[in-house]
Amino acid sequence: MNHLGSELGSVCIIGNGLIGGSLLRDLAARGVRVFGSTHSEAAAARAVAEGFEVSSSLIDVLSRAESELALIVVAVPFDAVASVLDAIAEHSPSCGVTDVVSVKAPVLELVAQRGMRERYVGGHPMAGTAESGWAATQTGLFQGAAWVVAYDYARECAGAGPSAGQGAGGRVPDSWVRVFGQVCRMVALVGAEAVPVTARKHDETVARISHLPHVIAEALAVTGDRGGPMAQSLAAGSFAGATRVAGTRPALVGNMCETNATPLVEVLDEYIALLNDARATLAGNPPSMQALAEAGHTAHERMSARSGARRESVSPVAVSSRPVMRVHPGAPGWVAQLEQIEALGGRVEVF
Amino acid sequence: MNHLGSELGSVCIIGNGLIGGSLLRDLAARGVRVFGSTHSEAAAARAVAEGFEVSSSLIDVLSRAESELALIVVAVPFDAVASVLDAIAEHSPSCGVTDVVSVKAPVLELVAQRGMRERYVGGHPMAGTAESGWAATQTGLFQGAAWVVAYDYARECAGAGPSAGQGAGGRVPDSWVRVFGQVCRMVALVGAEAVPVTARKHDETVARISHLPHVIAEALAVTGDRGGPMAQSLAAGSFAGATRVAGTRPALVGNMCETNATPLVEVLDEYIALLNDARATLAGNPPSMQALAEAGHTAHERMSARSGARRESVSPVAVSSRPVMRVHPGAPGWVAQLEQIEALGGRVEVF
Repeated sequence: MNHLGSELGSVCIIGNGLIGGSLLRDLAARGVRVFGSTHSEAAAARAVAEGFEVSSSLIDVLSRAESELALIVVAVPFDAVASVLDAIAEHSPSCGVTDVVSVKAPVLELVAQRGMRERYVGGHPMAGTAESGWAATQTGLFQGAAWVVAYDYARECAGAGPSAGQGAGGRVPDSWVRVFGQVCRMVALVGAEAVPVTARKHDETVARISHLPHVIAEALAVTGDRGGPMAQSLAAGSFAGATRVAGTRPALVGNMCETNATPLVEVLDEYIALLNDARATLAGNPPSMQALAEAGHTAHERMSARSGARRESVSPVAVSSRPVMRVHPGAPGWVAQLEQIEALGGRVEVF
Repeated sequence: MNHLGSELGSVCIIGNGLIGGSLLRDLAARGVRVFGSTHSEAAAARAVAEGFEVSSSLIDVLSRAESELALIVVAVPFDAVASVLDAIAEHSPSCGVTDVVSVKAPVLELVAQRGMRERYVGGHPMAGTAESGWAATQTGLFQGAAWVVAYDYARECAGAGPSAGQGAGGRVPDSWVRVFGQVCRMVALVGAEAVPVTARKHDETVARISHLPHVIAEALAVTGDRGGPMAQSLAAGSFAGATRVAGTRPALVGNMCETNATPLVEVLDEYIALLNDARATLAGNPPSMQALAEAGHTAHERMSARSGARRESVSPVAVSSRPVMRVHPGAPGWVAQLEQIEALGGRVEVF
């Protein structure tokens, strides 16, 4: 048994926003050697004043990452990812790379274009607030959250399908296996749960449970507001809850949805079809909404069963509701194990 | 100056669910002589065991209401309202009547069919939880909530329009003026804020800010659930918040939406049009969602400005964000005052 990936080592975080900055705080608090860069000198100065190793020179930081063989976490908005990957290709040719961008297939494409797939493992922590920027960063942001780990490259190397990776683990390059292990260890260190998913499945899923909710909250805010002062006066908790994410910066919402436009348009079509059906039965004689109300209630019970289990725990140690599988990266059959975990929406612990 | 309506007197609550039961608790706690009825003997026994005067005999309760000239609060589901009004017509011919049903025009129609408009003032507290029934009742449920008070009859008597009620207050029957005062006093006693609205405006507004959110939450729950175990695993706080009201009993949601179907279909059409627009720009090249994201954010800021002011108060006495006007029911010009308050989404205090 080899021990590739058994060490996390240094971590280099590019970007100091809500996710990158909160990750920096958590890793530093756990004693990890962590440093990073931000595009703004003022932002770097604020982080340095709090005792963090943050610089506004991307090249300096990437050079240091190379010398320490650090794991590089790309935590910039999607439209800045290509140029950061270019800089990594030039200044950190030996480092493993992951990211925290909210779409995975488009990032994977940029990585492939630069021939970096053997050392890239996509990531996406399902955590955040309506706020953004260093000022919004906090410790513990990722506690109990799913942290998607995209393993497309391993599937392709091992051969996709039900028997994928059976005795063929050796075909996944060691460099990728090592990065996979590093990412999973980093995720565990900040209290999150590594959920293996392919990029396409991830993008379709977040279109359903993250991007679609943003679109419909924006549209609901507009529709409510058209009701004028009386709507403002009568709107109660249910309206506020349903439109909370419309408080997110519009540019952030726009970029997120636009980057995942293809899967989002598909689920938006599904969603609009459901509303059209409800509209038709409500306009009927007699009006009816029983079908949607019952389907929605059943779906809600199923969707909240897992988070419900997490919420109701009275144990001081949070109990995860995601099934867990312990995996040794690179061991025979390990990619097939990841596929089994994905089918369950489960989490992986590496050893 | 007369003092019609300066006394609340006894209150008789028909129906012992979340709203009726919580109102019973609050009024009893404030020393009001309050009694009521529920359709089930078991439910009545539970309330009696807690020290409340609740009976399962509607006729007994309505006869007592008549003898005490109590204000009758109809707190039953809409489909039971007609038969309760019939019983009131027979057993409580002298009592003022209000209700807490979530639509106002259909109730007003039932009242008009029975010739009871002169003693009926429609009501709707904008408060509730996803739970229902006596077990879910609580004290303080209405604190700071808007409590709609429908004043259509006064407008019609005084003559609608900008000069309504100028010097014509006498034309609104004394019986109605007295009930209006009683309802406003009861609302103030439980910490809620009386917001005067016409039935039609109320029904259109709640379609926007209450019933539409229910429809879209049900449809979102269904769409998310179609993502299977991975969607269950990755769904985070934003999904849970956006679908919370899908946890409400389906029959309750169905009845509420169906009773207000006409205004709801209209706002649903508005809403679907917004989604279709977003779908079109997201399917464009390049995809865009900036227009909706910006409109939604602006609308959200406006909608949350008032509730924000309430939430952020550090004063031990909650500060209302609704403009207030003090009105003496029946005084010259008082109906015109109510129209001014309605235009602001404000609240009325009676003296």
